[in-house]
Amino acid sequence: MYSESIQKLIEAFSKLPSVGPRTAARFAFYIIKAPREEVKGLMEAIAEARKSTKLCSLCFNPFENPSDNTLCDICSDPRRTKNILCIVEKESDLMAINQAKTYKGIFFVLGGTLSPMRKENIRKIRVKELIERVKDPERYGAKKFDEIIIATNFTSEGEATALYLERILKEVGVKVTRLARGLPKGGELEYIDEETISSALEGRK
Amino acid sequence: MYSESIQKLIEAFSKLPSVGPRTAARFAFYIIKAPREEVKGLMEAIAEARKSTKLCSLCFNPFENPSDNTLCDICSDPRRTKNILCIVEKESDLMAINQAKTYKGIFFVLGGTLSPMRKENIRKIRVKELIERVKDPERYGAKKFDEIIIATNFTSEGEATALYLERILKEVGVKVTRLARGLPKGGELEYIDEETISSALEGRK
Repeated sequence: MYSESIQKLIEAFSKLPSVGPRTAARFAFYIIKAPREEVKGLMEAIAEARKSTKLCSLCFNPFENPSDNTLCDICSDPRRTKNILCIVEKESDLMAINQAKTYKGIFFVLGGTLSPMRKENIRKIRVKELIERVKDPERYGAKKFDEIIIATNFTSEGEATALYLERILKEVGVKVTRLARGLPKGGELEYIDEETISSALEGRK
Repeated sequence: MYSESIQKLIEAFSKLPSVGPRTAARFAFYIIKAPREEVKGLMEAIAEARKSTKLCSLCFNPFENPSDNTLCDICSDPRRTKNILCIVEKESDLMAINQAKTYKGIFFVLGGTLSPMRKENIRKIRVKELIERVKDPERYGAKKFDEIIIATNFTSEGEATALYLERILKEVGVKVTRLARGLPKGGELEYIDEETISSALEGRK
């Protein structure tokens, strides 16, 4: 076994997403041997990000906020349409869609996915918060949604989540759409998997 | 782009080994949303491991040390043979060999590997320190080495490193051995790669 303080550091790193005990041990040994300034930099960056970042009260995207604003830069941007909502799994998906510069509505960060097998994850993702915002959008700074785009990933978890959300959002009585599937840019048919090709055929226009 | 403090946290996490910008972003968003106690726990574990851990002056294995001892628990253990040295790439490899309980000598943590293509990594691993200890073992608390076991991993980097070490250690005039290669426990021939089978055949006895 490693010494107590190293073991504790490994356990602390193991809590980061997708970090197992081996990776955590590599992080721990790196940290022990890293230059003092680098470790100080990491600790300060953690403290600073915790201090100066909060979650948007509408979309849950973290944002930096020196004032008392509760809405993030996207949700408080007057040029953005407040009656279209795009549901994403996580913050980096929001960023990817936003950087494509085609979408002008607002977002909702679900904070994860449902596992297709284990339904207990429902409490871990923001389904309750989503329904609250869809039922009473004005209260949160949005407008009655004309359309909700489910932009989960094309993975089995993303699919399970999308099917679940589609069902409960349709009960609320709002128009729900999904991202199109098909060939990605540069996609060569001979290298593309069967499911994508089937999707591209089904969605032909 | 993410906000400044999030961006800084992503950059800080990107310095951890094998963490790219995407993983670093996942870590950053996790840290922003994690419970206060958990983040505090991580910061304290980092500070504590840095404070109470030092590197062994002989083998460079990190160890916890309330006293002024400069040798780790392994190097200062009187039951261990001080005239056999086992060179490992990293701390977790040392731990793996030690837990097998067959080896009774001491170790040397190289701190990485040579890339087979880029020789500039030589300065990053502890080759100079290794040669110093092999040439003057008493000065570091060891005895004249009767054997040096190169226990790098069976990967292209590990192989390149082993070949390089073998060459320079033989110049010093010390007996150098390598770990045996062959079938691992539970290994079924039909599933084992050709290189391992060739090694098992060559090393037959």
